[in-house]
Amino acid sequence: MRRNDYYIPVSCEEKAADFGNTKDGGDSKYNKYDSIPLNSLKSDEAGPKQGPTFQDGQRRVDYVLTYHIQKPQSFRRKTSHFGDYRILRSLRRSLSMMRGRDTPPPKEDPEVAAHKHRLDYHEDDKRFRQTEFEDNLREMGLELEKDEGNKIPGIGFLKIHAPWNVLCREAEFMKLKMPTKKRINLFIRKATAPLHPKVEPNRAQNVKHLSHPFSREKQHLLLGNGVYSAAYPLHDMLFYPLLSCQILYDEWASYSVFYKYQPIGLIRKYFGEKIGLYFAWLGVYTQMLIPAAIVGAIVFLYGCATVDNDIPSMEICDPRNNITMCPLCDRACSYWKLKTACGTARASHLFDNPATVFFSIFMALWAAMFMEHWKRRQMRLNYIWDLTGFEEEEGHHRAEYEIQVMQKTLKKQDMSPKVTHELEVCVLLSPLQVGVTFAVVFGVILYRISIKAALHMSSNPTARTNIRATVKGTAAVINLVIIIIMDEVYGALARWLTLLEVPKTDKSFEERLIIKTFVLKFANAFSPIVYLAFFRGRMVGRPGDYVYVIGSYRMEECAHAGCLMELCIQLCITMLGKQLIQNNLFEIGIPKIKKLIRRRKSDMDSQQQEDYNMTLQRHEKDHFLGPFVGLSPEYMEMIIQFGMVTLFVASFPLAPLFALLNNIIEIRLDAKKFVTEVRRPIAARAKDIGIWYNLLRGLSKVAVIVNAFVISFTSDFIPRLVYQYMYSPDGSMHGFVNHTLSYFNVSDFQPGTAPLQPMHLGYEVQICRYKDYRETPWSNTPYDLSKEFWAILACRLAFVVVFQNVVMLMSDFVDWLIPDIPKDISLQIHKEKVLMVELFMKEEEGKKLLRDSHANQSPLQPRSRPASHTPSNC
Amino acid sequence: MRRNDYYIPVSCEEKAADFGNTKDGGDSKYNKYDSIPLNSLKSDEAGPKQGPTFQDGQRRVDYVLTYHIQKPQSFRRKTSHFGDYRILRSLRRSLSMMRGRDTPPPKEDPEVAAHKHRLDYHEDDKRFRQTEFEDNLREMGLELEKDEGNKIPGIGFLKIHAPWNVLCREAEFMKLKMPTKKRINLFIRKATAPLHPKVEPNRAQNVKHLSHPFSREKQHLLLGNGVYSAAYPLHDMLFYPLLSCQILYDEWASYSVFYKYQPIGLIRKYFGEKIGLYFAWLGVYTQMLIPAAIVGAIVFLYGCATVDNDIPSMEICDPRNNITMCPLCDRACSYWKLKTACGTARASHLFDNPATVFFSIFMALWAAMFMEHWKRRQMRLNYIWDLTGFEEEEGHHRAEYEIQVMQKTLKKQDMSPKVTHELEVCVLLSPLQVGVTFAVVFGVILYRISIKAALHMSSNPTARTNIRATVKGTAAVINLVIIIIMDEVYGALARWLTLLEVPKTDKSFEERLIIKTFVLKFANAFSPIVYLAFFRGRMVGRPGDYVYVIGSYRMEECAHAGCLMELCIQLCITMLGKQLIQNNLFEIGIPKIKKLIRRRKSDMDSQQQEDYNMTLQRHEKDHFLGPFVGLSPEYMEMIIQFGMVTLFVASFPLAPLFALLNNIIEIRLDAKKFVTEVRRPIAARAKDIGIWYNLLRGLSKVAVIVNAFVISFTSDFIPRLVYQYMYSPDGSMHGFVNHTLSYFNVSDFQPGTAPLQPMHLGYEVQICRYKDYRETPWSNTPYDLSKEFWAILACRLAFVVVFQNVVMLMSDFVDWLIPDIPKDISLQIHKEKVLMVELFMKEEEGKKLLRDSHANQSPLQPRSRPASHTPSNC
Repeated sequence: MRRNDYYIPVSCEEKAADFGNTKDGGDSKYNKYDSIPLNSLKSDEAGPKQGPTFQDGQRRVDYVLTYHIQKPQSFRRKTSHFGDYRILRSLRRSLSMMRGRDTPPPKEDPEVAAHKHRLDYHEDDKRFRQTEFEDNLREMGLELEKDEGNKIPGIGFLKIHAPWNVLCREAEFMKLKMPTKKRINLFIRKATAPLHPKVEPNRAQNVKHLSHPFSREKQHLLLGNGVYSAAYPLHDMLFYPLLSCQILYDEWASYSVFYKYQPIGLIRKYFGEKIGLYFAWLGVYTQMLIPAAIVGAIVFLYGCATVDNDIPSMEICDPRNNITMCPLCDRACSYWKLKTACGTARASHLFDNPATVFFSIFMALWAAMFMEHWKRRQMRLNYIWDLTGFEEEEGHHRAEYEIQVMQKTLKKQDMSPKVTHELEVCVLLSPLQVGVTFAVVFGVILYRISIKAALHMSSNPTARTNIRATVKGTAAVINLVIIIIMDEVYGALARWLTLLEVPKTDKSFEERLIIKTFVLKFANAFSPIVYLAFFRGRMVGRPGDYVYVIGSYRMEECAHAGCLMELCIQLCITMLGKQLIQNNLFEIGIPKIKKLIRRRKSDMDSQQQEDYNMTLQRHEKDHFLGPFVGLSPEYMEMIIQFGMVTLFVASFPLAPLFALLNNIIEIRLDAKKFVTEVRRPIAARAKDIGIWYNLLRGLSKVAVIVNAFVISFTSDFIPRLVYQYMYSPDGSMHGFVNHTLSYFNVSDFQPGTAPLQPMHLGYEVQICRYKDYRETPWSNTPYDLSKEFWAILACRLAFVVVFQNVVMLMSDFVDWLIPDIPKDISLQIHKEKVLMVELFMKEEEGKKLLRDSHANQSPLQPRSRPASHTPSNC
Repeated sequence: MRRNDYYIPVSCEEKAADFGNTKDGGDSKYNKYDSIPLNSLKSDEAGPKQGPTFQDGQRRVDYVLTYHIQKPQSFRRKTSHFGDYRILRSLRRSLSMMRGRDTPPPKEDPEVAAHKHRLDYHEDDKRFRQTEFEDNLREMGLELEKDEGNKIPGIGFLKIHAPWNVLCREAEFMKLKMPTKKRINLFIRKATAPLHPKVEPNRAQNVKHLSHPFSREKQHLLLGNGVYSAAYPLHDMLFYPLLSCQILYDEWASYSVFYKYQPIGLIRKYFGEKIGLYFAWLGVYTQMLIPAAIVGAIVFLYGCATVDNDIPSMEICDPRNNITMCPLCDRACSYWKLKTACGTARASHLFDNPATVFFSIFMALWAAMFMEHWKRRQMRLNYIWDLTGFEEEEGHHRAEYEIQVMQKTLKKQDMSPKVTHELEVCVLLSPLQVGVTFAVVFGVILYRISIKAALHMSSNPTARTNIRATVKGTAAVINLVIIIIMDEVYGALARWLTLLEVPKTDKSFEERLIIKTFVLKFANAFSPIVYLAFFRGRMVGRPGDYVYVIGSYRMEECAHAGCLMELCIQLCITMLGKQLIQNNLFEIGIPKIKKLIRRRKSDMDSQQQEDYNMTLQRHEKDHFLGPFVGLSPEYMEMIIQFGMVTLFVASFPLAPLFALLNNIIEIRLDAKKFVTEVRRPIAARAKDIGIWYNLLRGLSKVAVIVNAFVISFTSDFIPRLVYQYMYSPDGSMHGFVNHTLSYFNVSDFQPGTAPLQPMHLGYEVQICRYKDYRETPWSNTPYDLSKEFWAILACRLAFVVVFQNVVMLMSDFVDWLIPDIPKDISLQIHKEKVLMVELFMKEEEGKKLLRDSHANQSPLQPRSRPASHTPSNC
């Protein structure tokens, strides 16, 4: 009844064929071993040995450490070159713990110890430490084999095999679970059958096995103490049906299966829970994007369909409304007719219509639903993967931290300590960030202003009509390029800053790095968008009293129909561009180039290379793959995308659709990368997605207020409503355009700012109009903010208050409505508990019977009470 | 090293003296039993028997069930009279489960069974069921003794004793914890020594024992199936030093120790975790109120100190500002001088000054801190009480639910099912609630309006000057009386509605009842306050165009200095009155009266009574105490108070001080009640305070927005700021009063509304003033809302947006800053884990050594590999 599920990275599988050699025959031969009962599989002696093995062809290679064959002078450089220093964590502490339990280490004379430290990087000491480390590994019961520079010159491999008894010892830190059948709605199962990957779903997903998850706690035992250059388990290129890389490649890491669910169970088995959770999260996110994309597309189509019925844009485009507008720049620009803004006004309507308000509310609730849905999915995976009782460790001290502390202690007199505290870093970081961001945004603004002025200056009429489109397009592209470049810069900066801090543990290192990277990259990606949405066109002043920056540059105005259109273009270009360039170029291109460079180094042409490749063993092949650099870049990319999808959805309802299309590719791209491009990552356990969940939650909270502001301040939604219900003479939108435009007497221009060509339109202009709510030139307080301005501002703010609180309430309601633990899982857990209690009670009754019969036989019963009152030694 | 901590309600203690009989001697005798090792305490045979025991004087009475000695016709009435039906839950299900495991129950013929049900309440059947139930109890190993009508006529007692082996069986559902010493800062310990109750803190709180917490799961086994009228464990009136009722009485349930911490460990041991958590929560809340009360008092004192420097009230009080105000009611009232509002204006300043804004922010953060602090305290208690792995059960099916289902099944044809669904109840509830609340609030408004008009009508000048104070005071008192009466009505209503729903389990019953009661009582307590804060004086119209309700009643206006003063009085009277009346009268008085009535029934005079009391045994004495009705009323009272403290703190900074004073009394009052006034409650396990935490959290979230609105709309804070920075000619507050008053031309009064005595002030009035921002009578749009109105409204709303988001951000920051698990507890948990791992590794090494030596001896070693690779049966 109980079954055994192997945890791949240190798996007990000894019965698998090597991918390169015995391509056929493996399949049928080893099926029977998949679910053999625990007792019958006593050791790895059973079965033939055909995987990547030691020289004896028997013991499987579970893990590989690589090192440079003794070239003292190049050691440090090469280590950093391979970039694997990150994964070399200190084993010393844990090993001393281990040793402390069986044989106490010989006490070193403090003098000798101090001397030793001083020779720290000396060759002899390194060799000594390596030997000591290997001895420790052997002492733990692991079996080692060296493979020095057979095919790859200068590189030595230390192959490690974990025998059955070591695995069993580790496995005893396990949780017992009863195998319980899950009820499955057969109809749904059949209907969605084509969506499921062909990985024997019935066995793999519906029966819960008794599982042996190895805790991460012990994995650091397998990592070196500073003398090895890389450490990785091997890619299993086997045909073993449930557990191979090949099936992952076919059923997961392929674009042809994009419409299928991911084989999460298999991914977890192959890569560990941490990566499994990432792909599960990505899957849930992508799945949840489908309804959002559909609704977004409908909202956009609604905008398209109603564009011809939109009274304000009809009024703008109507040639009878012959409104003369004030010039958009000093001197060079002249008066213009409002009807030339017709195109922009019609385009704006696509994104600025009442449906977007509905869509913002929808997306806020969608975000709440998504968080809840993920919580439930995570809970389900925790249950299926037996993580319910697992608690994450703080993590082990980082080697860098220990080195730093050591150095600090030893060389106190020689060098000042480099350890910087987080607070200092923050103090350093904030003004730098603000400065750089401001400089970038400001630079782009200046570019736009100057280009616009230059284009206006030119007398070519076609150039003039295309001015706006050209400026918008080029500015957005420049922004994009700056964003992508700064993204890389900020990534490096965050890493550098975190290294400066020298956090104590791996976990705190990761968290701090993530937070820093997130803050920097997020500000980078969103500052131009925030500028467009909330600051552009707000501080322009008014005709005759414009605001000037740096001498003579007038602040930009928005087009008549609001800045929403430009915001929309910026969002569109940023999303598409970032995804296309960062995904395709960086994620596919750069690893390929790196691989190529690494191969080039061995100075062989392609034919030779291929022949050479054929002779390489698995562990040597994997050596040429890129190292696994963690999940943070993948998560980061997705979080930024999530921000785009939720934060400014009010201005760009197509964002979810773009995100969906990107993610469908992204899943398979990441899958391909993990399966074929990088060394197999060390499987890590994780119960949740950690800090990313908090970031997502924070984003979805911020999204509510950002959308409230976009709707009420960036779009024309509130002014329209106010006009319709407070000012319109007939309750319709007729006259709205006129209502939004204030009057300006051209005689009030400041000296030197009046247009050079006042007769550009063919007639003399006395009064021009501009978009603002101000008093008329003939009122008591000319050009003051009018009552309408304050009324509309009050309404905008009232909308923000109402929107924010209503949406927050609804999100909390959704949160409360959907239980965090799915009903079937909680039932299952309850059932298991009841089973345990029943088992216990049965045992108890057995005991009682035994006790009773014993008591009846005993002649020395102390009292003659009717009920059993016997002492028991429980 | 391991110790045994007894869980009192089903304790193994057999070695205690009865309070009434052997008052001396118990103390020294039983000290040595407190920490005897587990193995030496094998059974309850050991030690002398002197507590409340069975007739044999040996077996202790652990639990008592009472029933009415067979009087068929009065059975049902009496049961409901005692009000204990609530605690009589169905044992049938669990018993059948128990039975199902050893001997299957004899299968009943369906015909016979149906017939039996029809005779459900028949005497024979009841007697049969009682016998069957008692047989079941005996079968479970419990020992029973009957004590029928010895002293109390008509009442039979079924005394239950749980022998050692039964306790041990239950105890095996336990969690092992290593006893670990907690580091204690000795200095702090010494400094705060007088604050700690004298309950041997070192032993009781600092050493973690290996404990045997009995799960609640099994407690329902001790409850009857409808034939018993009450079930309770006994009060331990012993001198046993750690575990008696007497020490609780001396060191906890006494007003003289009000300044001390509560002996939470002891409370938990005596009453169980659920009640322990309530008192721990109350303690944390009271403790946290201290800083809030201090800051609140300082804010109030600041108001008092600055009242003479407040320019607006100086302007109002200045006789030179001879402003004529418009009449406050139609016809009867006349014009009045603004300086008569001088007193109110000065009083308002006490509560309406910039310090209250600071205090609102402070209290929002205080609420966040409080929630965090409680989370940590709860975590600590969970650790100390060994609840870390404990998961709460859904609870057992309620007897009422099963009866309902049974009745529904049996009498489908006879009666329509009574089961109402939650949705129906909600549909029923909402309009009812809205209706009643509206009627009550409206009634009070009408009272105020009519009284005011009547008083104005009277020509007595002293009556007139006291009009406002009289109206405010009486209205607030009337409100209070209505609130208290409706509170009881709503409590009964919530219970009735929840009973209508017939929830499935105890837990869902409790939760639904709490939510309903909370909604009803909260709306009841806060509707007058909300009316005063946000609606009073908003919809009054303006002179010449007043809003009338029900024919001729004009809506109330606020006094010149805003409604804040009245809100304040209302809050003050509600808080003080509710606390005084509900605490002292209801909580102390009514139980006393009930007890008296219950005693009176036995028709004896006081001397007889006393003599009679002396002869009573413990279980008979406890019978006269009131039943324990759950913690909900206590929590509810505190939650309403928490609402008062946080929701409207902007208008009444003394609220935390009042709450603190009340709670210091409340703790000891509740303690007294639990120790002496009610039957000892059945100890229940709980990991947290459940739904109350969510309600608190919800309240502290709502508090932010409510305070934002109080500051910006109820107080004059924003108009003052706007005046100072936008309109003031010299940047000071001079002229603010004039700015807030609009002009009204008396010729614009509607016919029949002009004052009857226009010459009341001694001169003819042409223009009177009223508090509003409207255009002047001589403008183009007379009496329209002015630009100032809209500007101030926009500023008010902007303040709400900024305040809400800043405070929410700060609260989240506090939430994030304070870790949920205290550092020392997480270290402790980690240490325990390491110890476990070490223990395991030691065992493992022992095994390995054994295996190795075995392998070396074995001649049939299959292979000659160097490392140990032996099969093991792990």
